[in-house]
Amino acid sequence: MIWPMEIAKTVEDVRRAVLTVRANGKRVGLVPTMGALHEGHLSLIRRARIETECVVVSIFVNPAQFGPHEDLARYPRPFDEDSRLCRQESVDLVFAPDVSVVYPAGFASFVAVDGLSDRMEGTFRPGHFRGVATVVLKLFNIVAPDIAYFGQKDAQQAQVIRHMVRDLAMPVKIRVCPTVREPDGLALSSRNAYLSPDERQSALALSRSLFKAKELIESGERDAKSVRHKMRSVLESAPGVVLDYSELVDHVTFEPVREISGSLLAVVAARVGKTRLIDNLPIDVPMKN
Amino acid sequence: MIWPMEIAKTVEDVRRAVLTVRANGKRVGLVPTMGALHEGHLSLIRRARIETECVVVSIFVNPAQFGPHEDLARYPRPFDEDSRLCRQESVDLVFAPDVSVVYPAGFASFVAVDGLSDRMEGTFRPGHFRGVATVVLKLFNIVAPDIAYFGQKDAQQAQVIRHMVRDLAMPVKIRVCPTVREPDGLALSSRNAYLSPDERQSALALSRSLFKAKELIESGERDAKSVRHKMRSVLESAPGVVLDYSELVDHVTFEPVREISGSLLAVVAARVGKTRLIDNLPIDVPMKN
Repeated sequence: MIWPMEIAKTVEDVRRAVLTVRANGKRVGLVPTMGALHEGHLSLIRRARIETECVVVSIFVNPAQFGPHEDLARYPRPFDEDSRLCRQESVDLVFAPDVSVVYPAGFASFVAVDGLSDRMEGTFRPGHFRGVATVVLKLFNIVAPDIAYFGQKDAQQAQVIRHMVRDLAMPVKIRVCPTVREPDGLALSSRNAYLSPDERQSALALSRSLFKAKELIESGERDAKSVRHKMRSVLESAPGVVLDYSELVDHVTFEPVREISGSLLAVVAARVGKTRLIDNLPIDVPMKN
Repeated sequence: MIWPMEIAKTVEDVRRAVLTVRANGKRVGLVPTMGALHEGHLSLIRRARIETECVVVSIFVNPAQFGPHEDLARYPRPFDEDSRLCRQESVDLVFAPDVSVVYPAGFASFVAVDGLSDRMEGTFRPGHFRGVATVVLKLFNIVAPDIAYFGQKDAQQAQVIRHMVRDLAMPVKIRVCPTVREPDGLALSSRNAYLSPDERQSALALSRSLFKAKELIESGERDAKSVRHKMRSVLESAPGVVLDYSELVDHVTFEPVREISGSLLAVVAARVGKTRLIDNLPIDVPMKN
């Protein structure tokens, strides 16, 4: 462990800190974040703390993954509180680069995972996953982690990264950790901070629609159309929820499934007031006897 | 050094071989090639042999960098002769993967360097540099070289790779080594093997046009239009040479220059019979007194 926790702003600072760790044969874990840390992020940090000897948390609100009309400017950046949480969780190194460090003048190199990036979230956020894949690849090149940690909450993002890592033979293991939820089911998200009390109440429809799908399937429902319909009913009954999509998809390809079998993902994206939220729930369909 | 030279076909074989080398603190040099090795490649290998303790040569005819109507199928693949040359040059490891190792089923991740990739060669070979950047990034991930070696002959390729490495903070140094030429000026290329004796004679117009540009500029000519015109005259005087482009460009951006100053590159691409050839010559313009 590096003690006290270091805060690195440059590529060189990170490399210097990690080099010593590596030279001693220790493993490095990376938790890439956009800051505004909540219990979801902390669960990733704790998993990294268990599995590796040097835990690096990157905090970078990545402009390349925001669309022109999205919430880049107002995205929360509570850096002091984030640092405090990292210290509390015994993080070794926080990498908090400026935009010019990640995207120097003349930056023009982007990684894209075709196909997977164009579905679901990709339809509503063109270029989003290209921005995600590019920054994650760059973070991997800078930190050279043995293991990197992502949340199931951003399921399609995690799948894009898994696919990229496999395709490009990147020497890193990807761990995807379960979504952390409030007691009432709301998936933790830094964007929940935008919600008014009424909106927060309406936002519960997202997780409720997912649990509804799971419950139906576990009770034996095998008609995908019927499950989709009932998910949608839950969402439509909530005031002020404008649906982007609500689907049952394959957990690898993110293509809508025709049959209810194997490993599925119920996914939803909706706007609640001005806030866009996403959620998902893995559903393993029991084999027929 | 690894002795006798190993031939690796899989990612795991390369990693196993290089791991031991790295653990002993030795440096790894990578010379990425498409095989059909000539003195140009050998000059890169010799430079790597001097600068690093473990020299890896990759031999892979990369489908992703060929267009649909290009010479992928007929590109020469003299593997036994290539191996012999590598052994002769004391190469430690040859990485000669099958296409399915580099592009497994479902492969969908590509790296592109915008802007630079769309000019010059990019105009005539859409997608070419995306294919180059992707395979080079993957080779870097597999071999993890300290230094990688490229030929000035493929100047724009080298610049695309430099740009990618800088943008994505890839932990590798890029060395670009001078073009090797036949005594009569023809730049060595694996594609020269396609040329009939008459075509080979005509092909000399490419290098002659470049040396003409250099000579004019070194004699004080500062009118870019006039230099371009004279380069083109040389090319047009050769029978059977069909020009793709002939230009004076900035050595970093590959954009045509308006003024003759600084570091330029005279570049040319032409078809001679069915064979497409490229060549270039760096020209440093002397400062005015």
